[in-house]
Amino acid sequence: MTERIIVINPNSSAAVTRAIDAAVAPLRSPGGPEIECLTLAEGPPGIETQRHVDEVVAPLCRLVEQQDNRASAFVVACFSDPGLHAVREATSKPAFGIAESGLLTALTLGSAIGIISILAAAIPRHWRYVRALGIESRVAADLPIGLGVAQLADEGETRRRMTAVGRRLIDDHGADVIVMGCAGMARQRAGLEASLGVPVVDPTPAAVGAALTAIRLGYRQGRQR
Amino acid sequence: MTERIIVINPNSSAAVTRAIDAAVAPLRSPGGPEIECLTLAEGPPGIETQRHVDEVVAPLCRLVEQQDNRASAFVVACFSDPGLHAVREATSKPAFGIAESGLLTALTLGSAIGIISILAAAIPRHWRYVRALGIESRVAADLPIGLGVAQLADEGETRRRMTAVGRRLIDDHGADVIVMGCAGMARQRAGLEASLGVPVVDPTPAAVGAALTAIRLGYRQGRQR
Amino acid sequence: MTERIIVINPNSSAAVTRAIDAAVAPLRSPGGPEIECLTLAEGPPGIETQRHVDEVVAPLCRLVEQQDNRASAFVVACFSDPGLHAVREATSKPAFGIAESGLLTALTLGSAIGIISILAAAIPRHWRYVRALGIESRVAADLPIGLGVAQLADEGETRRRMTAVGRRLIDDHGADVIVMGCAGMARQRAGLEASLGVPVVDPTPAAVGAALTAIRLGYRQGRQR
Amino acid sequence: MTERIIVINPNSSAAVTRAIDAAVAPLRSPGGPEIECLTLAEGPPGIETQRHVDEVVAPLCRLVEQQDNRASAFVVACFSDPGLHAVREATSKPAFGIAESGLLTALTLGSAIGIISILAAAIPRHWRYVRALGIESRVAADLPIGLGVAQLADEGETRRRMTAVGRRLIDDHGADVIVMGCAGMARQRAGLEASLGVPVVDPTPAAVGAALTAIRLGYRQGRQR
Amino acid sequence: MTERIIVINPNSSAAVTRAIDAAVAPLRSPGGPEIECLTLAEGPPGIETQRHVDEVVAPLCRLVEQQDNRASAFVVACFSDPGLHAVREATSKPAFGIAESGLLTALTLGSAIGIISILAAAIPRHWRYVRALGIESRVAADLPIGLGVAQLADEGETRRRMTAVGRRLIDDHGADVIVMGCAGMARQRAGLEASLGVPVVDPTPAAVGAALTAIRLGYRQGRQR
Amino acid sequence: MTERIIVINPNSSAAVTRAIDAAVAPLRSPGGPEIECLTLAEGPPGIETQRHVDEVVAPLCRLVEQQDNRASAFVVACFSDPGLHAVREATSKPAFGIAESGLLTALTLGSAIGIISILAAAIPRHWRYVRALGIESRVAADLPIGLGVAQLADEGETRRRMTAVGRRLIDDHGADVIVMGCAGMARQRAGLEASLGVPVVDPTPAAVGAALTAIRLGYRQGRQR
Repeated sequence: MTERIIVINPNSSAAVTRAIDAAVAPLRSPGGPEIECLTLAEGPPGIETQRHVDEVVAPLCRLVEQQDNRASAFVVACFSDPGLHAVREATSKPAFGIAESGLLTALTLGSAIGIISILAAAIPRHWRYVRALGIESRVAADLPIGLGVAQLADEGETRRRMTAVGRRLIDDHGADVIVMGCAGMARQRAGLEASLGVPVVDPTPAAVGAALTAIRLGYRQGRQR
Repeated sequence: MTERIIVINPNSSAAVTRAIDAAVAPLRSPGGPEIECLTLAEGPPGIETQRHVDEVVAPLCRLVEQQDNRASAFVVACFSDPGLHAVREATSKPAFGIAESGLLTALTLGSAIGIISILAAAIPRHWRYVRALGIESRVAADLPIGLGVAQLADEGETRRRMTAVGRRLIDDHGADVIVMGCAGMARQRAGLEASLGVPVVDPTPAAVGAALTAIRLGYRQGRQR
Repeated sequence: MTERIIVINPNSSAAVTRAIDAAVAPLRSPGGPEIECLTLAEGPPGIETQRHVDEVVAPLCRLVEQQDNRASAFVVACFSDPGLHAVREATSKPAFGIAESGLLTALTLGSAIGIISILAAAIPRHWRYVRALGIESRVAADLPIGLGVAQLADEGETRRRMTAVGRRLIDDHGADVIVMGCAGMARQRAGLEASLGVPVVDPTPAAVGAALTAIRLGYRQGRQR
Repeated sequence: MTERIIVINPNSSAAVTRAIDAAVAPLRSPGGPEIECLTLAEGPPGIETQRHVDEVVAPLCRLVEQQDNRASAFVVACFSDPGLHAVREATSKPAFGIAESGLLTALTLGSAIGIISILAAAIPRHWRYVRALGIESRVAADLPIGLGVAQLADEGETRRRMTAVGRRLIDDHGADVIVMGCAGMARQRAGLEASLGVPVVDPTPAAVGAALTAIRLGYRQGRQR
Repeated sequence: MTERIIVINPNSSAAVTRAIDAAVAPLRSPGGPEIECLTLAEGPPGIETQRHVDEVVAPLCRLVEQQDNRASAFVVACFSDPGLHAVREATSKPAFGIAESGLLTALTLGSAIGIISILAAAIPRHWRYVRALGIESRVAADLPIGLGVAQLADEGETRRRMTAVGRRLIDDHGADVIVMGCAGMARQRAGLEASLGVPVVDPTPAAVGAALTAIRLGYRQGRQR
Repeated sequence: MTERIIVINPNSSAAVTRAIDAAVAPLRSPGGPEIECLTLAEGPPGIETQRHVDEVVAPLCRLVEQQDNRASAFVVACFSDPGLHAVREATSKPAFGIAESGLLTALTLGSAIGIISILAAAIPRHWRYVRALGIESRVAADLPIGLGVAQLADEGETRRRMTAVGRRLIDDHGADVIVMGCAGMARQRAGLEASLGVPVVDPTPAAVGAALTAIRLGYRQGRQR
């Protein structure tokens, strides 16, 4: 069977899925697993509330089950990692969330993580997750740019705000590595890294890279999940 | 308007709802808020997996919205606190989860919490939540009795297993307060406390008590959720 | 016997006791427990040092013993929770401290707690207690208004300073719920919440609410204290 | 003026004071500060409850004030560090508690601390203090020998129990350094270290050593206490 | 230029290097980076003490500098991550340590990590590192098999001991994912995973997988190291 | 044999060794141990990178072995505590690092530690160490003055920068005790303490004081290192 990583954008914005698809392109290689990016039709245009996060889990798990025969691994491509642990129950294939993978990757690139989020409402949700991961002593701060998912399409304004927030994370909060806290920010990574002078992690390719490794090494999921 | 606490059992087992209803009876008082216990018809018979936890959120939030005009406060009566933060977005009324309230109550009754869970699969999920709450240094251990929600109806076997697990939590792990990790264990509290000789917290009435206080004091929820 | 919550103001300022009495009024109900607020005659006018905290314990425990037959539960109404664990030895009735209860209540209303204290000298003492509780990852900051207990009688100045400090806790430190760090601030809660736009917890009624629940549910204290 | 470290045994047992006096003898040197061990007449025979801890603070602070002119530094010689922070307010001289100093010393001698306590009731109190110090990740376990302060006079039984508990701390809990959790255990240190094969810290001389250093280096206490 | 991951075994045992080479084979692919495993001639036969860890850093950094032109990324293949942060200063290429990568990978496969170490002396060193990483709340226990690096060549005895220790990590300490705490254990992974029934992470391929991703995504190291 | 504390300055700057020698002078006493300060000839002029830290360990351990017969205790006098745990393997005599001892001393003098570092590059290294020690909840912030070790010879500029940074640590980050994060800052302690009004710890004498106590009390090192 062809090896295939199924990346699911749990919001329904095809533009975001296209940006994800472009961002993961460097991880495609001849003979390597296919990397297929799907849009969750039932998702909201952007996942901006806890309710959005929780309510996409049912259709997301159904999509995982439908794709299970075709997939070697799954990636959930929203920085709230919606349904990640439910997906890990729905399939025996390795499954990754972009927040988990993006943050763990950042731990290898810097000492103190700064997170750039879209809306202020996301921040308590992120902190709950950072604490659940047990890595809160490595996260310096999480600051919002005040734009929703749809507004990220305005790339100039997004860049200006991300640069300003990134600068505050570094100068005022001591961050020395930045994680972009939304899959929809993918296009901003290279420019932002050049501006800020510290590593900037786009979480989606970080998770796809983890999936590639997991496939190659035959990782299996834990019994107790 | 009549003040009313709506307690939602997010599994579909009316027997569990009845046990909850009995357990919260001491909190009813003449002139005090009504305490009304509802069963989430769309829920599974027992919430035993992360997917169960996540998939009840959509119908749970709809029920909250339907009841919002009638309610002064809400309680989600499952120890995984499914959808608690989504419910807090769906209503401006104070909302409580029984795990959050049960664990915080236990912090006032003892030094080191022991949790008695139903199935082993729940334990990683509980630890994620305990860490998200930021109280992991106060939880000594979480051990399962190996029975599903439906099997809790066998009260004798349940009592025997809860007593044995409670004893291990105290003797081997240093717990000095026990939290029952399932709304369906409500009937066991008094007997277990007598057997073990340490406080035993039934989390559902703990949350309803918190809701009563919140109504009396006019607590409002945070802006950023 | 009449159920009765004895709230002890461990400083000797009757004005503070009166403010506490007014603040807990919403928790009185026909048929419910009496809530009786006592002033510790032997206390200092305000508890502003660690020595104040420790030295009130002896008379406080004596008062608890004198009142034990009349009481169903006790509340120690000073944000340093003086003698809380000694009181828990002196009586078998449930006993609550307003710092413990206020902070745990705030955990259900927000993600990151900001504490408004009276004097700078209180802050290291508060942090020792927050760490002892094991919830330091949920406390964003603790800032003083620079007024002693007696000076809180100047309500206008107190309001101005609390509003300014609360604003800094929110804007600079990321707090999304405020705990007032002195029983003597009781009158400021409603106005402050309106100004700041986030929940503001007055810790004394939070503890009395916990005591009400404890009485109704028959909580007993832990064996090992 | 003669330099002088005043070591205060806050219990009223002269036998404990004598054991302390012998334990600190190696820290006396010609030309060095006098080390004078006092018994707090107002203290209980042994400090075994939180109430004991809190109620000695008033006479302890008075004794500190009486001795202040004669003292270059103070040591409070009870493993609950009763009144340590109040003493730090009562004098401008450096002041040390034996629990604080004993635990911090152990951090330099091993990776994971095991504490041997007298009674089970002490353990929640110790953990509150360990968390307040912020070093809980370095304490593996705290286990009791089940003897009160007076019973420590039976040296044979005390040795047997301390050896057995020390062995469990090492073998079952991974401790590689032991702290004796009571000033009254002073005579057991050398034998216990020989039996267990890991460093054993007697906390009282550890604190006196810290006081010697503080005097020599002219340490002053912090402004904000 | 050919992309190339240089994996450095910092001990001088060619047998260990060969085992590493075999373990990373699944990560080689046509058109993908070469993965070249080098033995540090100046290293000791096995890295078993802190001094071994520290003393290989000088020759390790020289080797990194010699290989820098040929390398796209580096992996230091010893579970003590000797010199990892010095290597990150010696090269601008991404550099990974197998302990860091193995532990972070395990965080995605389970809730509570159990580490199987070679000798007891390694364990305090590992805990210092786990705390430095900030993930100690996710590590359940670290237990030794009591064999040095050379003795791992006895595969039967190694398997027996690793299985027994793995079982204790799971049953007594609650681990649900195992990390093998030595590069020299590579050959044991598959058998151990089959015996234990939980995921077992060989840290070396985990780090090489991270290096592959880093090369593909162009990660750069942080400015401040 | 004469008792003797060997203090090793692991950089090769004799001027720094002389400053250390002066700073520890108050700890010399007639009849007390000699305190001899050595310069590590093989060290770099200043230890400013992780590689410097790691590469001095081999010559440092050799020097310790050469001096072992003459020494009663060792102190490693660089704030990165280079090779501290390797030294503890190389000798059975007690060994102290100035960062470990300076930070633990500060815990007895204040609530929240502020560290003044030389260069920004040191800060992630310090945080790794603070987390490894397990005391990160007590460290408020670590800020650099932007001068290398050699530049500390300009005492006026050093004083100005240390005062400004110390002020920020206190006012913006809540520190109430300062630790000077370089042995080469020794001459600044008294002036800085006078300017800032909070205790300022010079870490080298703090470690020598700990060594004095260890010699007097016959501390031995742990078995497992």
